[in-house]
Amino acid sequence: MKKKIPPKPWFFPRPVLLLSTRDGAGRDNIITVSWAGVACTKPPMVTVSLRKSRHSHACIHATMEFVANVPTSSQMDEAELCGTRSGRDTDKFVAAGFTKQNATIVAVPMIEECPINLECKVRQVFPLGSHDMFVAEVVKTHVQSSLLGQDGELSGSQLDCLGWGDGDFLRVVKGRPPRRGLQVL
Amino acid sequence: MKKKIPPKPWFFPRPVLLLSTRDGAGRDNIITVSWAGVACTKPPMVTVSLRKSRHSHACIHATMEFVANVPTSSQMDEAELCGTRSGRDTDKFVAAGFTKQNATIVAVPMIEECPINLECKVRQVFPLGSHDMFVAEVVKTHVQSSLLGQDGELSGSQLDCLGWGDGDFLRVVKGRPPRRGLQVL
Repeated sequence: MKKKIPPKPWFFPRPVLLLSTRDGAGRDNIITVSWAGVACTKPPMVTVSLRKSRHSHACIHATMEFVANVPTSSQMDEAELCGTRSGRDTDKFVAAGFTKQNATIVAVPMIEECPINLECKVRQVFPLGSHDMFVAEVVKTHVQSSLLGQDGELSGSQLDCLGWGDGDFLRVVKGRPPRRGLQVL
Repeated sequence: MKKKIPPKPWFFPRPVLLLSTRDGAGRDNIITVSWAGVACTKPPMVTVSLRKSRHSHACIHATMEFVANVPTSSQMDEAELCGTRSGRDTDKFVAAGFTKQNATIVAVPMIEECPINLECKVRQVFPLGSHDMFVAEVVKTHVQSSLLGQDGELSGSQLDCLGWGDGDFLRVVKGRPPRRGLQVL
């Protein structure tokens, strides 16, 4: 049985992403976000949404750059830390034990320990209410070589990544679900 | 070791959503999308992106309404069918064996078999390149009662939903990943 409830933006699973940022004074920070999505293939564009009150909102607004780092399911504790501490009083690279790796196009450092890093340049910012939505172009992608198939494409079934499910993390396991079969009419 | 590759919008996991639509002539359709994300909490807003050439693009553009239906991992075959056939020549409700359920605010029918249905009204459309991004407000949410905790909130760990991982579906399993522990400095 279903229940009608007040409107909730319940897309599942949602990605868990660690956004690294550098503010106008050159201080680096990391924030964990899940209000995010892919928006376009050509050019490759994504959205991430942040509350105006967040320290990272000011950082991204200052430079219009960030790196979206995709964590593995074994980096849940780091993701939690970067989502619950503020960069105003914590150096989250140090607290999470992450290593800075130079990006190639943006000035923001990438997280070396994350298997996928997307260098992003913000193209537009839309205030939507509680959150501002940053629409950004991915300008360079870095990926752990072992995740690429022989064709140079990412093999989705090799991922063991981390999702968000409202109130808790979700585990995404390698391999597609079992095929149940469908009688196509 | 990491490899630098041309830019790819590789957020993982991505949601798999079945969008139900009704065109200007009252014909219903379903399309599977993964270029989508949550954009705002208050008001609850989401984005979905579609190529202009898609039949569903015209349907949504005509009515500015859709329902985002969240499938379970056991509905992978239906998701595949709705993502690979065109509504121009297939009644996908019939082909997938789905039942129409009346929504309360939008005219578009919901998919009864999906445990979560989000009634959405498009507020803005942004052409980004290969895809147009529809920014929509969720105006009503329907959820299978068994997924709600005693506090009326959705218990994320009770979900067994379907993700997309570039080239293949991903399985999201119930329960968070094991905690590895982090020495917080």
